[in-house]
Amino acid sequence: MKEVIAVVRINMMNQTKQALTDAGIDAFFAHEAQGRGKGFVNPQLLQGVEEGYEEAAALLGEKGKLYPKRMITAVVPDDKVPDVVKAIIATNQTGKPGDGKIFVLPVKDSVRVRTGETGETAIA
Amino acid sequence: MKEVIAVVRINMMNQTKQALTDAGIDAFFAHEAQGRGKGFVNPQLLQGVEEGYEEAAALLGEKGKLYPKRMITAVVPDDKVPDVVKAIIATNQTGKPGDGKIFVLPVKDSVRVRTGETGETAIA
Amino acid sequence: MKEVIAVVRINMMNQTKQALTDAGIDAFFAHEAQGRGKGFVNPQLLQGVEEGYEEAAALLGEKGKLYPKRMITAVVPDDKVPDVVKAIIATNQTGKPGDGKIFVLPVKDSVRVRTGETGETAIA
Repeated sequence: MKEVIAVVRINMMNQTKQALTDAGIDAFFAHEAQGRGKGFVNPQLLQGVEEGYEEAAALLGEKGKLYPKRMITAVVPDDKVPDVVKAIIATNQTGKPGDGKIFVLPVKDSVRVRTGETGETAIA
Repeated sequence: MKEVIAVVRINMMNQTKQALTDAGIDAFFAHEAQGRGKGFVNPQLLQGVEEGYEEAAALLGEKGKLYPKRMITAVVPDDKVPDVVKAIIATNQTGKPGDGKIFVLPVKDSVRVRTGETGETAIA
Repeated sequence: MKEVIAVVRINMMNQTKQALTDAGIDAFFAHEAQGRGKGFVNPQLLQGVEEGYEEAAALLGEKGKLYPKRMITAVVPDDKVPDVVKAIIATNQTGKPGDGKIFVLPVKDSVRVRTGETGETAIA
């Protein structure tokens, strides 16, 4: 089992939800999040910071702000991970900074509270 | 160490908090989340989607919406995981769809910022 | 790759953001969270609960409430974990209860949606 975490644009939430459903994933969770990827940062400012300019660091602190995003989490069987990742990319890839990130984390166990079922049965 | 993530009904938050405390877990975090488990989805619609009916997919996209939930996370020593899981189930199991899910994830290390302590000491 | 999760005071968010940037981490995500560590709990009440006094349990349920915190998550290469942890401690350690916690979780893979890059390249 793996936890697939996708951080996507706010306005891509519904399409991503649908893409997960189409990929056979019916159970997932969504959070609000704020995020920043490398693409958001002014590279001149970053270089200024690396070169030790305090003004650049101050500007980065001011302007390198976090952007509102949505985080969607699904726990899926190992063999579904590639399809889920493909579906999220297909839905969210525009080629522009801010398309988002996907993280895949190991999960040791899952439990369906209603029945007490564990393992892959709990997420089937 | 393991991270135990419980997704439960909003109105079960206080009881779950108390159940964790009773199980000897004093440190935990809560988030708002939106979730959907298989139980929430109209099975006729799901079957319609599987059979390729676009109308069913549209309806599912519309009606298979996410429900507000609470997510509680606790990082606990390995030997406390079974008790924590039992406590969450005992508190949240009604037998109806929406009782929630529990996920158990491996944790490599924990740090208490106040003291710099690491490992199980940091979460004791 | 590891996911470093830091739970910190709300008013330390900007400094922590800057500390992560200074440590070479440009991509991270923030959530609102509510948290409680051992330090928040009245130890007399806790002892009362352990000794079986129901009144203490009731008071703990009432007063052992969760405090608003911020949770910052960064997925970083293994060799950056020590620097990131040090930076978070250096920024948030006051020696008082509520300084926060850091958790380090294994990550199996990362994907940059914009390019489809995976692994450490996706988080570089």
